[in-house]
Amino acid sequence: MSTITDSASTPSRSATAVILAAGRGTRMRSERPKVMHPLAGQPMLRYLLENARQVFDRIVVVIGPGMDDVAAIAAPHAVVVQSDRLGTAHAALQAQAQFGTGDVAVLYGDNPLITAETMRELLACRRQPGVGLALLAMRPADPGRYGRVVTQGENVQRIVEWADATPQERRIDLCNAGVLCADAGDFRRWLNAVRNDNAQGEYYLGDVVTQAVSEGACVRAVVAAEDELRGINSRAELAVAEACVQARLRHAAMDRGVTLIAPETVFLCADTDLAPDVVVHPHVVFGTGVKVERDVEIHSFSHLAQCVVRTGAQIGPYARLRPGSDVGARAHVGNFVELKATTLGEGAKANHLTYLGNARVGARTNIGAGTITCNYDGVFKHVTVIGEGCFIGSDTILVAPVTLGAGAMTAAGSVITGDVADNAMAFGRARQENRDGYAAEFRNRLKDAKERG
Amino acid sequence: MSTITDSASTPSRSATAVILAAGRGTRMRSERPKVMHPLAGQPMLRYLLENARQVFDRIVVVIGPGMDDVAAIAAPHAVVVQSDRLGTAHAALQAQAQFGTGDVAVLYGDNPLITAETMRELLACRRQPGVGLALLAMRPADPGRYGRVVTQGENVQRIVEWADATPQERRIDLCNAGVLCADAGDFRRWLNAVRNDNAQGEYYLGDVVTQAVSEGACVRAVVAAEDELRGINSRAELAVAEACVQARLRHAAMDRGVTLIAPETVFLCADTDLAPDVVVHPHVVFGTGVKVERDVEIHSFSHLAQCVVRTGAQIGPYARLRPGSDVGARAHVGNFVELKATTLGEGAKANHLTYLGNARVGARTNIGAGTITCNYDGVFKHVTVIGEGCFIGSDTILVAPVTLGAGAMTAAGSVITGDVADNAMAFGRARQENRDGYAAEFRNRLKDAKERG
Amino acid sequence: MSTITDSASTPSRSATAVILAAGRGTRMRSERPKVMHPLAGQPMLRYLLENARQVFDRIVVVIGPGMDDVAAIAAPHAVVVQSDRLGTAHAALQAQAQFGTGDVAVLYGDNPLITAETMRELLACRRQPGVGLALLAMRPADPGRYGRVVTQGENVQRIVEWADATPQERRIDLCNAGVLCADAGDFRRWLNAVRNDNAQGEYYLGDVVTQAVSEGACVRAVVAAEDELRGINSRAELAVAEACVQARLRHAAMDRGVTLIAPETVFLCADTDLAPDVVVHPHVVFGTGVKVERDVEIHSFSHLAQCVVRTGAQIGPYARLRPGSDVGARAHVGNFVELKATTLGEGAKANHLTYLGNARVGARTNIGAGTITCNYDGVFKHVTVIGEGCFIGSDTILVAPVTLGAGAMTAAGSVITGDVADNAMAFGRARQENRDGYAAEFRNRLKDAKERG
Repeated sequence: MSTITDSASTPSRSATAVILAAGRGTRMRSERPKVMHPLAGQPMLRYLLENARQVFDRIVVVIGPGMDDVAAIAAPHAVVVQSDRLGTAHAALQAQAQFGTGDVAVLYGDNPLITAETMRELLACRRQPGVGLALLAMRPADPGRYGRVVTQGENVQRIVEWADATPQERRIDLCNAGVLCADAGDFRRWLNAVRNDNAQGEYYLGDVVTQAVSEGACVRAVVAAEDELRGINSRAELAVAEACVQARLRHAAMDRGVTLIAPETVFLCADTDLAPDVVVHPHVVFGTGVKVERDVEIHSFSHLAQCVVRTGAQIGPYARLRPGSDVGARAHVGNFVELKATTLGEGAKANHLTYLGNARVGARTNIGAGTITCNYDGVFKHVTVIGEGCFIGSDTILVAPVTLGAGAMTAAGSVITGDVADNAMAFGRARQENRDGYAAEFRNRLKDAKERG
Repeated sequence: MSTITDSASTPSRSATAVILAAGRGTRMRSERPKVMHPLAGQPMLRYLLENARQVFDRIVVVIGPGMDDVAAIAAPHAVVVQSDRLGTAHAALQAQAQFGTGDVAVLYGDNPLITAETMRELLACRRQPGVGLALLAMRPADPGRYGRVVTQGENVQRIVEWADATPQERRIDLCNAGVLCADAGDFRRWLNAVRNDNAQGEYYLGDVVTQAVSEGACVRAVVAAEDELRGINSRAELAVAEACVQARLRHAAMDRGVTLIAPETVFLCADTDLAPDVVVHPHVVFGTGVKVERDVEIHSFSHLAQCVVRTGAQIGPYARLRPGSDVGARAHVGNFVELKATTLGEGAKANHLTYLGNARVGARTNIGAGTITCNYDGVFKHVTVIGEGCFIGSDTILVAPVTLGAGAMTAAGSVITGDVADNAMAFGRARQENRDGYAAEFRNRLKDAKERG
Repeated sequence: MSTITDSASTPSRSATAVILAAGRGTRMRSERPKVMHPLAGQPMLRYLLENARQVFDRIVVVIGPGMDDVAAIAAPHAVVVQSDRLGTAHAALQAQAQFGTGDVAVLYGDNPLITAETMRELLACRRQPGVGLALLAMRPADPGRYGRVVTQGENVQRIVEWADATPQERRIDLCNAGVLCADAGDFRRWLNAVRNDNAQGEYYLGDVVTQAVSEGACVRAVVAAEDELRGINSRAELAVAEACVQARLRHAAMDRGVTLIAPETVFLCADTDLAPDVVVHPHVVFGTGVKVERDVEIHSFSHLAQCVVRTGAQIGPYARLRPGSDVGARAHVGNFVELKATTLGEGAKANHLTYLGNARVGARTNIGAGTITCNYDGVFKHVTVIGEGCFIGSDTILVAPVTLGAGAMTAAGSVITGDVADNAMAFGRARQENRDGYAAEFRNRLKDAKERG
């Protein structure tokens, strides 16, 4: 027992999190490293990093060979490469040079929903006087084939795998989540003692518990919610984790005073920033980088990404706000309207069947139905500038680069290829001619053709 | 006991509902009075009013100062103002002048899902011989911190708050919903006896139970479904209540013979009127005031409000029917098409990328893709009239006011600024010119420009 | 007992499934035969046929008079007509001439979710030595008013209807699903022995169990999941069954390596074919006949039917792919774009507010915003052919039949009525004219008109 570090004597110890992220995830049936699959718009690994950062002094991520994309996400944290896949204990050992002298927790990159609060509890448990090893456990609704945690009083006696469990042990509802925390020295020693004399020939992290118990260490379990401890090994489990993350994000938004009329139909990103008294109708999707100010109403079937929506604006239904859009206060955008890299001034309106790309639209300007900016010539993107208080007639085609002065108007159906001065009106359309009886004649010809087959 | 009114002797007593609606709802984090937050498109207070109206002879709504919007919704029912917020018993007391001589039930404006059936049971319970006070109770899936109803046999002995409950009492699963019903005189007397000698210094309606028991009144509980008794104190609870209301509306529609392929993705309003054999595909949103006749199919991603859809019409996908739309029998509207204040005749079609506003379209007329009515000149709205059997070419821009006679046609890409006679064809577009080799030249110029940077 | 066939001695017996599909389904409140209501885009009967086909040698469908549509779906399987509706046993008897000499199972057309696996287990159970009759049972979450299966050890003693059950029998959680399997001769004999001396005067299939037991036959129950055994008697039950089918389809897709970010918002058809590493965003609807190749991303609010999407294409948001669409590898379609009977070449793009019908678009061609093919003249559909590497300017109206050569361009806002040669540019629009001050003048006139009222 004397070898096991008692943290009670060292209250300001450092804490290191080791995140195992080398898994390829064959059950995902994907080319992508498992921890790179996104949840709410960002790689799942980011969630662990973000939460661990709040609790631990140092983070080390264990990746597989060639996983440069994972390393990029892990930066600026330390990264070590596990060259051979010899099991989770072997993976954790790759990081032993970075364990330092404080406490070490080993987390799993495909187990990304653990909250900072739970990490803190794990660390605090480990640091209770006399505790040598702390682990995370859960009581899932369906314990299924999880390993069971056998306890006596508060102490964990051992972990028993489902396959090896007696019927009595299988009735235990406390299940092992695999996450461990111990003093760096102890952890290193226990990891090195793990053997691979099992059917798969792998070094299992779970055997650290056996090592700890065999040394007489006091092992304690911290029980966390099942939702935090869900592993992600398949697309179906990825979808379940996504649902957990979405539920958290929706609840947080509602707690801040956002109305989500049907939260289960609204998809948020981790960075979606919705102010109080924003109302979101059913069936709305937020990509990354969206900021919405107070009193904005976002109607159904809208899709927003990388944009700002200012106070009191009305968005949708059927608004598509793409990166670089900035919708001014009390502006209206909706009904099959797409904005890209476009600023709409205060109170401006683009209400029907419109595409505005690389445009700046002045305050109070009304964009008629069917307006299109031709911002792309096949190689370059050009800018359209429309002044304040303009009235753009329906079906106006604005061939950029082009500038319309304040108060300018365009006639419906015009193609605008040149600038328009303040308060001028631009026409660019043919004059109407009617041919009497011609429609009847045309129909007759068609009818004849049809009859002839 | 002699002071407590026994209703058995007076079977035709009047019944008054007092609805407490003065709450600001700080946990909603909103500027809006709590009872004004909508459920299925109408303020939650309306649900209580509508159901109470079916059961009670008189309704009195207790509002806060300055809540004119709540008073407007409450009309024509009586309204009294609670000037000081001294607790729920104090709020109920403000209405005592309106209690009359029959029975009085006190309901909560933020508890709007109680059915008329349950209100009737509450009143009937109160009117059983010997019963002095009836209250609503529930057995929630998670009793949590609700006050518990302590009973002996059928009789309620007392309500015990969670904070004051013994571990044994906390195991009781019968929870207090707060709704009470008693004889007017008894209720008045018990309310006046309530004291505010508690931590918050408030007069609590729940203390009426204590008063009643202390007088030896027989108190009985009516058990209702948890879903009916959900209080709404936060946006998250508002969303849960919305889900309850939606589930009821969807079930009622299906019971009438409507097919909702995926009910959980269809959002109805309280007044949505769908006939039998209407089929609604996944992801459809109904605003208020929609009436749909038999055999209509509403495809995904459609959004309807304040409109009529007649027998056999095909709506959507991506149909946006705005107020004042009237879609004729067997007409088709969909694929990014918006109608506003527009009548489509029988069998007419507007099937692609079209905006029709303030228009009347005749039977069997075909509206080409990309057709737009220019109904707004910046100040006035103008009308477009299109006769029967017309063929509107694609991308026709109709500058209102304008009238097209029966059988008229327009050439694709025309801007129509003047009327078109019956069976005439209108042209309003430029003639095509080709420049050989110019596209290649243009591309080369762009390529050069790109190379120059 | 000697009359009951022991299958142990005849391992290669034939197996016949009789499917009862004559029900009108009054609780559906529909004109349509019940088994014709669709689940995941195909008539519910098809699911039973498809699964039964894998297990049984012969299928016989019992339909009602005049149900030609059901007969058409049932083909090429045998169909017999039940002329009078005298109960389920009577219905099964209509098929007795087709029972053959092996085993016979009777299934229900409105009970379409039974898997082939469960059918196999039923047949295997019946074929165990000594078993005379096998039936399907379930343990539903809420046993409600289902008939209960009374057993002694492994043997079924009898089925007791809810109405006739003692309180003790009602506590049994094993419920009868009605599906039976027996030797053809036994089944025929038992069916003929069923009497209609009950309140409704009907011949009930359930009475076959009574007959079997009375003959001393060994009756066994196969317990299947409740989800497989849900009957469909109302629109609400139809919606529940749809949800079950969707859940199965979504799970199968995820197991194949498809990412469904929010599976509960994605609607599949039974034949939807999604390759591994396809990503489907929230709120997507698949009609029948969709095939999607690897690495395609389908964004929110897209609707696909009868189309092919090739490797690496980007679809949506707001893409509407209608029958006959073929989207080439790495092509882009979205943002309010509709394709019908249109082929998009490799790497082609149609990214905004476009309708392409009966068109062939070459590789790498860029279709500008607001492009519309006028493919319909009121009677005929005409073809638009666009070559490789073209640049179609925004708001180009292509009046079919029309052909654009490789590398051709069109000026924005052009109406194209004639062919365009390779590398030529086509113009078909009016020249812009500006009138200085005219917009201000126009506004003043409107203002005056408004003031005059």
